Amino acid sequence: MKPALVPTPAAGVHLSTGGFEAVVHGLASALSTLAAPDVPRLRTPPVIARQTIEEVGYHESFPHLLGRVFARTDGGALAESDLVLLPAGCYCVYPVHAGERLHGPTEVSVEATCFRQEAHAEPGRLRSFRMREFVRLDTAERCLAWRDDRLAAARDLLAELGLETTSEVASDPFFGRGNRLLRKLQVERELKVELCAEVAPGQRQAVASGNYHTDQFGRLFAITGPDGAVAHTACLAFGYERLALALLHRHGEETGRWPDRVRKTLDLEAPR
Amino acid sequence: MKPALVPTPAAGVHLSTGGFEAVVHGLASALSTLAAPDVPRLRTPPVIARQTIEEVGYHESFPHLLGRVFARTDGGALAESDLVLLPAGCYCVYPVHAGERLHGPTEVSVEATCFRQEAHAEPGRLRSFRMREFVRLDTAERCLAWRDDRLAAARDLLAELGLETTSEVASDPFFGRGNRLLRKLQVERELKVELCAEVAPGQRQAVASGNYHTDQFGRLFAITGPDGAVAHTACLAFGYERLALALLHRHGEETGRWPDRVRKTLDLEAPR
Repeated sequence: MKPALVPTPAAGVHLSTGGFEAVVHGLASALSTLAAPDVPRLRTPPVIARQTIEEVGYHESFPHLLGRVFARTDGGALAESDLVLLPAGCYCVYPVHAGERLHGPTEVSVEATCFRQEAHAEPGRLRSFRMREFVRLDTAERCLAWRDDRLAAARDLLAELGLETTSEVASDPFFGRGNRLLRKLQVERELKVELCAEVAPGQRQAVASGNYHTDQFGRLFAITGPDGAVAHTACLAFGYERLALALLHRHGEETGRWPDRVRKTLDLEAPR
Repeated sequence: MKPALVPTPAAGVHLSTGGFEAVVHGLASALSTLAAPDVPRLRTPPVIARQTIEEVGYHESFPHLLGRVFARTDGGALAESDLVLLPAGCYCVYPVHAGERLHGPTEVSVEATCFRQEAHAEPGRLRSFRMREFVRLDTAERCLAWRDDRLAAARDLLAELGLETTSEVASDPFFGRGNRLLRKLQVERELKVELCAEVAPGQRQAVASGNYHTDQFGRLFAITGPDGAVAHTACLAFGYERLALALLHRHGEETGRWPDRVRKTLDLEAPR
């Protein structure tokens, strides 16, 4: 079957064909080259403890995007459960290291299926989507340097795949609503940088982002560096579906006709 | 990292390591041999339209297992959304063929992440877990024959991997509660057959199941065969995490020391 997203009765929720999955798997291998081979990998389920998401304050920063899981109690009444839908991959990493004194710079690669209750459903804006994240726990300086270095490497990798991206300093969409100061601060300090590409005609979207969280998560989860100082964190995130859509938009629906270099980098079969 | 499930603050919700994922990927390839190479593949997100699940009556048959997604409306109030967590892979297939007159026997391979709000969390009983399903749409006779033939092939494949399974006629857990007759009928007609294996010491669980749905889904989604008669359906489902746990329980934590035959079937790297 051609690489494609297949609509379902729910907006922003799509099935994907085997051909689309082949592109996603190729992207997964290609993105792995952005981390050292010994970086541990974790796969997270699409749900996470509500407690963790409340600890990081996601429900306050992005109240409209969070999906909450309700289920029946023993008595039969419908009630909020202990789970929410995972909004971003890196949130599963911090509890793993909670209370820990790290031996040194620590990096984790995460495969995640995320959910955001988006109000619109233009191409590439999915409610359920997959994300690859690299998470770094280190000093402030090294977190920032790592993020900028890996973002540059990511831009090169995407260029090699034929995707010219623009780099944009961003703020998370809901910071601005209740808290203009926080949003201004985030942009001024360049905490969030996005790589944007066209995923459909006239649809330009973030396909990757690099984020520096200061010591926010280190403090919340009591994670310290070898010197006992609170750990700082950063992450580099990639949206699989958006990247695959951008590639299909750039090179066409016939992956067998994509440039040799791109097919090779993505481990796609040669045309038959 | 060793192949393992990593606990999270939520019971029955586990992260998995790269080593565990290698086993899961190996299982995915091995299970693919149970279908013809030209069987279309679909990957489904972990959420599905609530409408679909209500159409098939899952919310009435298994009210305690269903996870419902709530989110804030534009006004800011928390309300049930149009989505629920996907309880089984095959439910995403029927809407794709809704209203269709099939050209002939139709088969689809589905990769799914499923959710069931289990009350207990013994080893192998996860709330979020992955499932591979093969779904067949055909005549009554051929659906039953296909299910039994593919179950036998699955048993052979699992035996080749060192997993001796027992075959048990089963009924879905909640049919019995409100409707003993339905449960009795299900067992008498052998609609559901499970393959069970030990996933941890003393923990025997279903690692696969073959189900014949009669024309229930064909009727609900108005799917007919080439002759215009309502299509019957069957499915063959495998639990990735349970299968991986059963393999680890059987062969030990060091996948490098697993029998050559098993490593080869699962595409696992040779020991270094």
